[in-house]
Amino acid sequence: MFQDQNVVYIGRKPVMSYVLAVMTHLNRPDATEVVLKARGNAITTAVDTAEVTRRRFMETLQIDKIDVGTEELTQQDGRTRAVSTIEITLKR
Amino acid sequence: MFQDQNVVYIGRKPVMSYVLAVMTHLNRPDATEVVLKARGNAITTAVDTAEVTRRRFMETLQIDKIDVGTEELTQQDGRTRAVSTIEITLKR
Repeated sequence: MFQDQNVVYIGRKPVMSYVLAVMTHLNRPDATEVVLKARGNAITTAVDTAEVTRRRFMETLQIDKIDVGTEELTQQDGRTRAVSTIEITLKR
Repeated sequence: MFQDQNVVYIGRKPVMSYVLAVMTHLNRPDATEVVLKARGNAITTAVDTAEVTRRRFMETLQIDKIDVGTEELTQQDGRTRAVSTIEITLKR
């Protein structure tokens, strides 16, 4: 499956695994930004990831943009449910 | 206790109670903006509140600014713990 190389998808893993993914990405010489994408309860983990990376590991890292939105998820019974989303763009 | 009249503090109540607080605030003739403040797991509820208010009840409402940060909480045993925060400014 193709995965956008600029994006770290935030799910249910511990915050430090996403911090590591962000650091790994930004340590490439040609990478200057990364986008954290999350929905639902993972939104808090996305904010934690941005804050921990910035405060503990990469103090020059800046939060360039934060967008929130809503996605319609179709459930197994065919009904749709709205879930909030966040995209946090980090720049070094 | 003095409570900043522009601010809705988001905690553990259902999303709709915060949506109602936002609407009540913005229906005053002199109020044009409101700030949602949350930390930890309530961050997701803050995003939900902004999205539900904007999509279902007040389609002219705009997200003016989103800031994230970190607060140091002192626990009962004297140790400190970092917790992520969010502030979402809504304008009508």
